[in-house]
Amino acid sequence: MTEFWHVPEIKYVGNHDLKSGFGFHYYNPDEVIGGKKMRDWLRFAVAYWHTFDQRLVDPFGDGTAQRPYDKYTDPMDNALAKVDAAFEFYQKLGVDFLCFHDRDLAPEGNTLRETNKNLDKIVDKIVAYQKTTGMKVLWNTANMFTNPRFVEGAGTAPYADIFAYSAAQLKHSLEIGKRVGSENYVFWGGREGYESLWNTDLKREQDHAAKLFHMAKDYANEIGFDAQMLLEPKPKEPTTHQYDFDAATTIAFMKEYGLDKDFKLNLEGNHANLAGHTYQHEIRVARTAGLLGSLDANQGDKLIGWDIDEYPSNLYETTAAMYEVVQNGSIGPRGGLNFDSKPRRSSFAPEDLFYGHIVGMDSFAAGLRVALRMKEDHYLDDIVEKRYSSFDSGLGADIESGKATMQSLEDYSLDKPQSHWIDATHSDHLEQIKDTINHYIVDTLGK
Amino acid sequence: MTEFWHVPEIKYVGNHDLKSGFGFHYYNPDEVIGGKKMRDWLRFAVAYWHTFDQRLVDPFGDGTAQRPYDKYTDPMDNALAKVDAAFEFYQKLGVDFLCFHDRDLAPEGNTLRETNKNLDKIVDKIVAYQKTTGMKVLWNTANMFTNPRFVEGAGTAPYADIFAYSAAQLKHSLEIGKRVGSENYVFWGGREGYESLWNTDLKREQDHAAKLFHMAKDYANEIGFDAQMLLEPKPKEPTTHQYDFDAATTIAFMKEYGLDKDFKLNLEGNHANLAGHTYQHEIRVARTAGLLGSLDANQGDKLIGWDIDEYPSNLYETTAAMYEVVQNGSIGPRGGLNFDSKPRRSSFAPEDLFYGHIVGMDSFAAGLRVALRMKEDHYLDDIVEKRYSSFDSGLGADIESGKATMQSLEDYSLDKPQSHWIDATHSDHLEQIKDTINHYIVDTLGK
Amino acid sequence: MTEFWHVPEIKYVGNHDLKSGFGFHYYNPDEVIGGKKMRDWLRFAVAYWHTFDQRLVDPFGDGTAQRPYDKYTDPMDNALAKVDAAFEFYQKLGVDFLCFHDRDLAPEGNTLRETNKNLDKIVDKIVAYQKTTGMKVLWNTANMFTNPRFVEGAGTAPYADIFAYSAAQLKHSLEIGKRVGSENYVFWGGREGYESLWNTDLKREQDHAAKLFHMAKDYANEIGFDAQMLLEPKPKEPTTHQYDFDAATTIAFMKEYGLDKDFKLNLEGNHANLAGHTYQHEIRVARTAGLLGSLDANQGDKLIGWDIDEYPSNLYETTAAMYEVVQNGSIGPRGGLNFDSKPRRSSFAPEDLFYGHIVGMDSFAAGLRVALRMKEDHYLDDIVEKRYSSFDSGLGADIESGKATMQSLEDYSLDKPQSHWIDATHSDHLEQIKDTINHYIVDTLGK
Amino acid sequence: MTEFWHVPEIKYVGNHDLKSGFGFHYYNPDEVIGGKKMRDWLRFAVAYWHTFDQRLVDPFGDGTAQRPYDKYTDPMDNALAKVDAAFEFYQKLGVDFLCFHDRDLAPEGNTLRETNKNLDKIVDKIVAYQKTTGMKVLWNTANMFTNPRFVEGAGTAPYADIFAYSAAQLKHSLEIGKRVGSENYVFWGGREGYESLWNTDLKREQDHAAKLFHMAKDYANEIGFDAQMLLEPKPKEPTTHQYDFDAATTIAFMKEYGLDKDFKLNLEGNHANLAGHTYQHEIRVARTAGLLGSLDANQGDKLIGWDIDEYPSNLYETTAAMYEVVQNGSIGPRGGLNFDSKPRRSSFAPEDLFYGHIVGMDSFAAGLRVALRMKEDHYLDDIVEKRYSSFDSGLGADIESGKATMQSLEDYSLDKPQSHWIDATHSDHLEQIKDTINHYIVDTLGK
Ligand SMILES: [Co+2]
Ligand SMILES: [Co+2]
Ligand SMILES: [Co+2]
Ligand SMILES: [Co+2]
Ligand SMILES: [Co+2]
Ligand SMILES: [Co+2]
Ligand SMILES: [Co+2]
Ligand SMILES: [Co+2]
Repeated sequence: MTEFWHVPEIKYVGNHDLKSGFGFHYYNPDEVIGGKKMRDWLRFAVAYWHTFDQRLVDPFGDGTAQRPYDKYTDPMDNALAKVDAAFEFYQKLGVDFLCFHDRDLAPEGNTLRETNKNLDKIVDKIVAYQKTTGMKVLWNTANMFTNPRFVEGAGTAPYADIFAYSAAQLKHSLEIGKRVGSENYVFWGGREGYESLWNTDLKREQDHAAKLFHMAKDYANEIGFDAQMLLEPKPKEPTTHQYDFDAATTIAFMKEYGLDKDFKLNLEGNHANLAGHTYQHEIRVARTAGLLGSLDANQGDKLIGWDIDEYPSNLYETTAAMYEVVQNGSIGPRGGLNFDSKPRRSSFAPEDLFYGHIVGMDSFAAGLRVALRMKEDHYLDDIVEKRYSSFDSGLGADIESGKATMQSLEDYSLDKPQSHWIDATHSDHLEQIKDTINHYIVDTLGK
Repeated sequence: MTEFWHVPEIKYVGNHDLKSGFGFHYYNPDEVIGGKKMRDWLRFAVAYWHTFDQRLVDPFGDGTAQRPYDKYTDPMDNALAKVDAAFEFYQKLGVDFLCFHDRDLAPEGNTLRETNKNLDKIVDKIVAYQKTTGMKVLWNTANMFTNPRFVEGAGTAPYADIFAYSAAQLKHSLEIGKRVGSENYVFWGGREGYESLWNTDLKREQDHAAKLFHMAKDYANEIGFDAQMLLEPKPKEPTTHQYDFDAATTIAFMKEYGLDKDFKLNLEGNHANLAGHTYQHEIRVARTAGLLGSLDANQGDKLIGWDIDEYPSNLYETTAAMYEVVQNGSIGPRGGLNFDSKPRRSSFAPEDLFYGHIVGMDSFAAGLRVALRMKEDHYLDDIVEKRYSSFDSGLGADIESGKATMQSLEDYSLDKPQSHWIDATHSDHLEQIKDTINHYIVDTLGK
Repeated sequence: MTEFWHVPEIKYVGNHDLKSGFGFHYYNPDEVIGGKKMRDWLRFAVAYWHTFDQRLVDPFGDGTAQRPYDKYTDPMDNALAKVDAAFEFYQKLGVDFLCFHDRDLAPEGNTLRETNKNLDKIVDKIVAYQKTTGMKVLWNTANMFTNPRFVEGAGTAPYADIFAYSAAQLKHSLEIGKRVGSENYVFWGGREGYESLWNTDLKREQDHAAKLFHMAKDYANEIGFDAQMLLEPKPKEPTTHQYDFDAATTIAFMKEYGLDKDFKLNLEGNHANLAGHTYQHEIRVARTAGLLGSLDANQGDKLIGWDIDEYPSNLYETTAAMYEVVQNGSIGPRGGLNFDSKPRRSSFAPEDLFYGHIVGMDSFAAGLRVALRMKEDHYLDDIVEKRYSSFDSGLGADIESGKATMQSLEDYSLDKPQSHWIDATHSDHLEQIKDTINHYIVDTLGK
Repeated sequence: MTEFWHVPEIKYVGNHDLKSGFGFHYYNPDEVIGGKKMRDWLRFAVAYWHTFDQRLVDPFGDGTAQRPYDKYTDPMDNALAKVDAAFEFYQKLGVDFLCFHDRDLAPEGNTLRETNKNLDKIVDKIVAYQKTTGMKVLWNTANMFTNPRFVEGAGTAPYADIFAYSAAQLKHSLEIGKRVGSENYVFWGGREGYESLWNTDLKREQDHAAKLFHMAKDYANEIGFDAQMLLEPKPKEPTTHQYDFDAATTIAFMKEYGLDKDFKLNLEGNHANLAGHTYQHEIRVARTAGLLGSLDANQGDKLIGWDIDEYPSNLYETTAAMYEVVQNGSIGPRGGLNFDSKPRRSSFAPEDLFYGHIVGMDSFAAGLRVALRMKEDHYLDDIVEKRYSSFDSGLGADIESGKATMQSLEDYSLDKPQSHWIDATHSDHLEQIKDTINHYIVDTLGK
């Protein structure tokens, strides 16, 4: 069989060599830490679109990517070769999961029936590979934003025909999810938002979106596809405003439409930043609500106002994300870390796809190691427990239990001098905390 | 009686004079348009803090404001004189409402009891003025963010004592609300957020916040204070992240804690911008949820990352805001337009307070006129109705009613060619819409 | 001859009809205002790329644009048909200028020689049309950012071959400029920046850029192409950082490399916003430096972090831009207003290209009318003159002339009390100014 | 003598202890690395304003800071005690430099003469301390932004009197600089910008600013004060637009007014971010122009739109900054790292001032260690040299030397196929570089 990627298998090599090569410094998949194998904590997935389809186009430039299967001119030949290339890639990288949109896999035909036929042929090949390799699908999804028919939305399109088409496309995508055994099913509503409020019936659009989600869940139940359903927030781009703006907004939507029982969230670092949040914030909001489903692993540039989907390399961000995961016990019931990441346009060589995943996997593995070390030391837990301890007994406990009333609290407060209240507050020494986290990162990884 | 403000009463003078002076071009309070007097559509309120207390300090500079009552050195003398100045101001400006924080009115004492005593003395004077002038209070609120005791929050402080103090302060503030007959009661949680997630128990803090809101509503009921309770979102500043980030986030919180029956939203233009939204967006989100309560009238500078609370002058923004109000029938059950606005630091003369309110009131009055004209012409309603009309019957109606299934929609879609779906979409001609709105503004106001 | 655009000629119809149709409300090309015909003040140009080539692709979606010449499958047939369509468009819209990149006009061949040949064939056709129509070229430019060879820059590429190619491409582009009689020649360095400083020799890259600009100017002189050379700033996108960040940065570069005698600036509204500036700011900076060359007319959305190139419709922004132009006497020695603007992706119909230009042209014509009215009234000039008048004589004149010294100013200042200095400052009543500008807009346009 | 700060002297303790306490992990002042003592590479300075004057006020809250000298009610007593506290602080922290504004030290009187008298008294005490301790002044400056008289600027004020006062204040500040032996003199033009362009004569204001800078330099020469003059850019806050927007803008200004011989730049991390840049970018721009003077050490939060002046803790940013310094040979001719940083408002205890400086000093010391290690390995230098090597000989050398012409480059390029040009570009493997930098940080600091 043809070799597509002229790189060796990526193995754990430890942190001896300074230069990044084809090896992991921190990711040792079968090492047990914090009670689980690293591979089971992290559940890394390769994203089909950015890894195999992405040509590194940008709004001002054509694709630069050099990909080994681009010798095939027939789109289906190319699609079939990509499957071989993908499974060689997964094996060499040592990941257990893949993710894909329907349209990543195969070209559209003139009708949905023809499109489905193209798609099924590729899915057959993927299923066959799954049998021999054990590769699992973290999630699949439907691309309902690229084709011009979705210009004004899919589930939220102002046109009944487009809603109909979306439902039909989604139906087949759910059937494929069942065939490949997807653990989750994701909805990222790339066009589910508005360009202008002047011509938008926001209520009617959101009603339609909710209806489509309910139809999808019902149909999944009907066919016995038991994936965890996930919504992926993003505030804008391509639309001026996207309905699933951030975790909190999406939770409000889910509660409004009774979707919070069956759906959870898939959260992405770059999307968090575009909404004005840190990745950690979005994960915290979701896990506090019991709605953390899965994670898209990438990083943004906070000085840049669009989605760059950079491979994660910032150890502060991966440590913070993994700390939330450690506190949560896992990424989510069936969640994982999907690399919704792509090389820079100037990293156009085939091997850059490996370098990108290596820095990404290593950065999250490093974050896991640091987070577990802080957890084992009870370092931050101690700080938090102590900080709120006045609510554990006495006055604070009465407040939490509901025993305290406005009257009792006024009685308590009315005659105490200003100094009493100032003395009731305590410096939280955030500068010391940030310094200590630096030491945790350096010490955990450097030794 | 001393005259504080050496300006005439501000009257409607029409749009003949090009220069802005002490007169309204568009605000004619007793003119009936769209079925109501302008004063009843707009319900303008003057904000005590920015108008009478604001010294135009900024993080790099001392106050520049020249205020006529600043000759008094004793804080209570100053506070009493400010009431006189305030009521002269209301009368000359011709507004019907005021808004205030408890701490705007009177200085703190060493104990809450002393503080309350100072406050009550000023409230007595306000109540007396209300009787003779008919001035109403749009809303009052408690300042639980300025004093150092609130350094880490009030309702969300990690210290039980601070929660106790906050509840006690709030109790008295609600009692004052009842005395002055406030139509609404607002909570802006200036410190209810976090500086860092590393030491924050987000869940416990939000539980406490919700508890305080429930206590407040229960106590209001107990004393027969029937104001509409309102939460005012702001994403950040002074905190790094504020829990009531935006309308959608606050709605999620309200639903989570069962507050959505008794609370609505007070929305501010500058806060919307800081959250990455337009003012219109926030109002639309709130009214769609049935939770539009009241409006803080000001504008931000979208190139600037902090709250500038500028007097509104942008006719696009006031038109958009008033269009949402017109669609809603009113600002809210008991809502109004409170000028949470201040002069630029270089507009330090007393009369700039009048100029600021004049441009603000005129801009919203202008926005109301334009919005009503578009409404009367059914201009945008027609666009929206036509845009979604495919859902009014046939396939679309089946989708909305739930008659359509994934199977029926697949049957409908499977064999239609690509061209069918493209033909199902229609240009929305947004450029033409923007041009026409320009014409509405110019034509409505210029003639 | 085939009619491509099924719209009538766009004529001045005045401001009677509220709805925007195929007519101008404010742009009356041959009306003389402020001493010049409107067409000579504004010198509108249609941008080939956005008008005829732009398919309304975005990073998440394929092109939606419906264009009448897209029936031709051979790229050269399409290119030839586009010229016919373009000249019909110019004539119907009533503009006098066009702008283009070399690659807008014709497809590339396998070698630069073949590419040039394709290009020359189209230029022949354009030149022929120019003879019969009188259409002029406001500026032409070279696209040195789309092709993958420019992945790391053109003039600033780290590869000598790419510099060589860029110079060669540029040479032919200058020759074309001469053939079509371009009044200006523009450089927008889409890839002239960096993705990362870690691997960038910033000094060497800027030396190369300057060298290419000097070569271009020298060659233009050599062939007798006397266009005004222009640099167009943009802070980022597609690169993480672009060298010509904004007007001031580009001026620093021009001064450093001795380019400020032969080059001026072409400024764009959306680019200004991306750099954190208003359009007015960029124009002011350029005209203060005597370096205002020409203007790209569009608008950004300040809540959005990428280049949206929206047709201008905001009358505040067009008034401010035109006020700077009026103060400058003209847009620049040979400048004009080029619509670097495109329809929203949902405005995909052919006629939307007309609606977009209509709102853009009308908005700038409106801005011109308002700016001239304020100028005629000496409204803002009076404010400015008065504000700085203390420098016109006495102490201030001594300061400006250099007669005052630190010693003399200390002598003057040492014993004056605080009150003296406060009294020396004056409120600038900005709220009143903003209100009056509203009145100028409404009154000038509405009557 | 009273002890103000109840903390031990801060010593280098190595990286054994995970928790941050009163010791340095990475800063070992007399350790020689890269040919210099760490203290001479870094030249840390404590900023008087943030360390001793800052009460942790914010726009919505009163000061929370607890400072040991706040028992004195007379401002001069407080000012004198602060000097004792400051020198104890310097000694315990182990820094060699301080920085101050004139108004940090002593309160204003009613006249400048009285103000100067207050100031001189404090400076006497500082000079006395310098003699016994050897403490040096990295730079001093004049606060010409806090007092209301500077409401519309100091050097750029539209009022001649304010210019006069500014010059007089500056004169004395320069004299103090000479007395304390300041190595640099800084101008941060907090009010030297505009609120609105409508009433601003940008040219006249910039002329005045330049005049004041020239007067200052001339007067410094006159009195034999040979400090390096520095301008500190910041884009906005408190003004809407500040003239010294960023490094490039300030360089343009310096060149325009002939200030680039005598002035260099003082660059701050948070200011860089507010201008849309990284700190590394600003330093690179300055050193490329030969204008790097000194550094203000702090960090911003790129999701926050105002100046937070956080103590630096991000090792990526300190590594990048120190890499530029290492490449430059030093921070600047007489530059150092001044902590223009303050504790979070919730870090209000006296010892937080130590924790803040510890994390800041350690983070820059760590950055220095990593940067030197990469430099010694020639790691990034190799990448850069190789990347541009095609310009070292042959075609590239001809281009750089000016031997190549447009004609020769066209001859070279005309017939080469597309594949030639693609082959001339090379992936820059940025993902691998980012990963390797992670390894350098972890390995250098962790062992
Ligand atoms: Co994603
Ligand atoms: Co993304
Ligand atoms: Co408000
Ligand atoms: Co505000
Ligand atoms: Co442009
Ligand atoms: Co643009
Ligand atoms: Co600074
Ligand atoms: Co700062």
